[in-house]
Amino acid sequence: MLGARTQGGWRALRRCASLPRAVRLRVREALGAREAADAVRVQGWVRSVRSQKEVLFLHINDGSSLEHLQVVANPSLENRVLTFGSAVEVQGKLVKSPHRKQNMELQAETIRVVGPCDIWSFPLKMKERHPLEYVRQFPHLRCRNNTLGSLLRIRSEATAAIHSFFQDNGYVHIHTPIITSNDCEGAGELFQIEASSEVRESAEKTHFFNVPAFLTVSGQLHLEVMAGAFTHVFTFGPTFRAENSQSRRHLAEFYMVEAELSFTESLQDIMQVMEDLFKTVTSTVLSRCPHDVELFHKYVAPAQKDRLEQILKNKFVTISYSEAVEILKQASQTFTFKPEWGCDLQTEHEKYLVKHCGEIPVFVINYPYDLKPFYMRDNEDGPQHTVAAVDLLVPGIGELCGGSLREERLPFLESRLQRLGLTDAYQWYLDLRKFGSVPHGGFGMGFERYLQYILGVDNIKDVIPFPRFSHSCLL
Amino acid sequence: MLGARTQGGWRALRRCASLPRAVRLRVREALGAREAADAVRVQGWVRSVRSQKEVLFLHINDGSSLEHLQVVANPSLENRVLTFGSAVEVQGKLVKSPHRKQNMELQAETIRVVGPCDIWSFPLKMKERHPLEYVRQFPHLRCRNNTLGSLLRIRSEATAAIHSFFQDNGYVHIHTPIITSNDCEGAGELFQIEASSEVRESAEKTHFFNVPAFLTVSGQLHLEVMAGAFTHVFTFGPTFRAENSQSRRHLAEFYMVEAELSFTESLQDIMQVMEDLFKTVTSTVLSRCPHDVELFHKYVAPAQKDRLEQILKNKFVTISYSEAVEILKQASQTFTFKPEWGCDLQTEHEKYLVKHCGEIPVFVINYPYDLKPFYMRDNEDGPQHTVAAVDLLVPGIGELCGGSLREERLPFLESRLQRLGLTDAYQWYLDLRKFGSVPHGGFGMGFERYLQYILGVDNIKDVIPFPRFSHSCLL
Repeated sequence: MLGARTQGGWRALRRCASLPRAVRLRVREALGAREAADAVRVQGWVRSVRSQKEVLFLHINDGSSLEHLQVVANPSLENRVLTFGSAVEVQGKLVKSPHRKQNMELQAETIRVVGPCDIWSFPLKMKERHPLEYVRQFPHLRCRNNTLGSLLRIRSEATAAIHSFFQDNGYVHIHTPIITSNDCEGAGELFQIEASSEVRESAEKTHFFNVPAFLTVSGQLHLEVMAGAFTHVFTFGPTFRAENSQSRRHLAEFYMVEAELSFTESLQDIMQVMEDLFKTVTSTVLSRCPHDVELFHKYVAPAQKDRLEQILKNKFVTISYSEAVEILKQASQTFTFKPEWGCDLQTEHEKYLVKHCGEIPVFVINYPYDLKPFYMRDNEDGPQHTVAAVDLLVPGIGELCGGSLREERLPFLESRLQRLGLTDAYQWYLDLRKFGSVPHGGFGMGFERYLQYILGVDNIKDVIPFPRFSHSCLL
Repeated sequence: MLGARTQGGWRALRRCASLPRAVRLRVREALGAREAADAVRVQGWVRSVRSQKEVLFLHINDGSSLEHLQVVANPSLENRVLTFGSAVEVQGKLVKSPHRKQNMELQAETIRVVGPCDIWSFPLKMKERHPLEYVRQFPHLRCRNNTLGSLLRIRSEATAAIHSFFQDNGYVHIHTPIITSNDCEGAGELFQIEASSEVRESAEKTHFFNVPAFLTVSGQLHLEVMAGAFTHVFTFGPTFRAENSQSRRHLAEFYMVEAELSFTESLQDIMQVMEDLFKTVTSTVLSRCPHDVELFHKYVAPAQKDRLEQILKNKFVTISYSEAVEILKQASQTFTFKPEWGCDLQTEHEKYLVKHCGEIPVFVINYPYDLKPFYMRDNEDGPQHTVAAVDLLVPGIGELCGGSLREERLPFLESRLQRLGLTDAYQWYLDLRKFGSVPHGGFGMGFERYLQYILGVDNIKDVIPFPRFSHSCLL
């Protein structure tokens, strides 16, 4: 039985009939069973108890699905500790349910309370729809809430779908480093790290790594290293910003999917992968977690479902930064920040642009040279001088992805780094242009923003298992 | 063409004949092609140039495989910048190769050098087998070395195989946090983090998160949170130790695969998953990267191949800690540390045990209560009082995995935490035992040690893209 649980659990059902002992089934397996089965064991947590004169009804959930398994029992099986939140093992017969809304139910022969639940101090209550802000206070218990349970299953499927997308397309997965000595890019918003003992003594005197070390803000430069040996690479890991922000779109620790492609011909190459990634992963999630996604599209963000289906059918729109500024200038709306060529697009601008294009994802390309980091490829298109950069803006979120072609031409990169006084720090990066340099580019997608967008979740803290932000690092 | 490259690249070949323009193929696709094709483009880096009177031979590699594609060209196509290390695009006819060792070769019509390579300053040399220690000095270029290239492809496949193993068995993937405020477990070996600006001012006065924050040493406690809602969860991410060690088995940043299972019946449940994970992932890697693995088994660790095949066929051995101590006491070998019940097993002991059992993986179970952390489950088996812990020892490495059943019984956990003075810090952890507690357990496997073991790589710095260890954080 041990092996059956861990290895063959999902396949156990079909062996049911021939097994002598009660077969352990997960709730999802029990609900999806095609046939009745005599000796079945289900384990999980009680989501509701309803005691009637003739019959005791339980709902059991074990996290394998949003749906609970209904257990029907003789009221004599009830006992004091069989409450909401308790952990139970139920043994009995799996039978076709007489109710229209469910396929199977379990007729209990024995109910064993494995772990009771002190319902008076348990912050979740039976059959209550707790607001997301409420459950956020209990980071160690909120996964037992329906909405967070669905979110975590969706997050897991989306993670797998992202890995599959890249693997299916021949990308090599790279674990880019979390700790890095590159500090030039993000300046003020970095986290610095030291061995704990050294922090206590003195942060200045010695460094564990001999040099100051920081948490990564992006794996891009390290992926570029790899793009000199593999034409398609990707990474999917945590990134960090020490932003003092309580915004519903920012976290101090969040996940990024990043890809880098060699031998690119134009920015279009990068945009195509961004669009394909978004559509493939979203379609996979929609088809693999229909009930979990439905919960969000029913209770959290009605109308999101139709919008998403429209988006998956149509091609994303592309406008240039210069066109974007023209659109903003001609808008009847008054902005807090006046739109002006050469200035960053503000959230209010991004919102307007997305609305102007019909509330669908919009690529904005070719940003002013002076607005963007040193590694972006010069378009050499003066007098309104731009680089081959792209942002993907989506409704309700703003920037979901950002990418660019990278400057692969040694003289261009050398002179830009020199002007910034960064030549010494980036000798290794210049080396990449000395030894078989190729046109290349890539992008990053914020994974939490992606989840926020497809599910219509307002606050980014509700799409990550353990949110970290300024003034808060619970558990 | 843009779409074909990024999306349909791996499937492009079968469309060859009908496409009007030269089809872009990756090296792996070209090598595996079943039929000749007229207009083909291959891009990559030159691994060798051999100029004969009548014919010019090139080897091209693009990271899609260990094997290079042979290009045959008229010597008139040679030019000064067509050197080892340069990036090229070759267009021509893909034909059956007359040579026995290769399937296809490319008859070049045009060769374009996309990016030249300054071979005098390029630290890699043509056709030289550079030692791993040598290429380690060039973290931004070593991925262009054959051995590292193979390693990175294997690492990528192993990563995918780990995700698939857990997904196929119904586990929910959880991103456990990298930054944590739990500091009680690892004490001296933690990395502490602060916003970079705060480090400069004062590490003591303010904290970005209000509390001291550290880099995670394990996702276990956070997985245990999730195991209260999902019966099977796993995580696969970076973990950190600020150990001042230059050992060939330790890194400051390394990857761990961790799983947690609810409703366990015995330690055997956990060990079964450890063994299944090892065998499934290894079989997948062996079958998906035969050439890459062969490189290691041929040049890096001869004889490892046969040993590995034996291991995959047989069941892992299990001995108890007490048995292990008896075996050590009866050994004819003299140890630096005398084996004694109640003392930690040292590396020399682990080595002896593995040898004693026939150089195969060995589970050692039921360790002394006083040696192990507070969360491990009391076996209540005095007078030699143990906990339900397990270590998996493997030849050449030592500890590959560690796991345990967790103490799910509130009174046991309460009294242990009280004795350690940790009750306040772990209120949330005690809560998990108050609300539907279940028997559960889990384990962690060091991913780099796993790669070291299956490939026979001596130094852990050679199985991770960017190694971080004391006094070193390059790039």
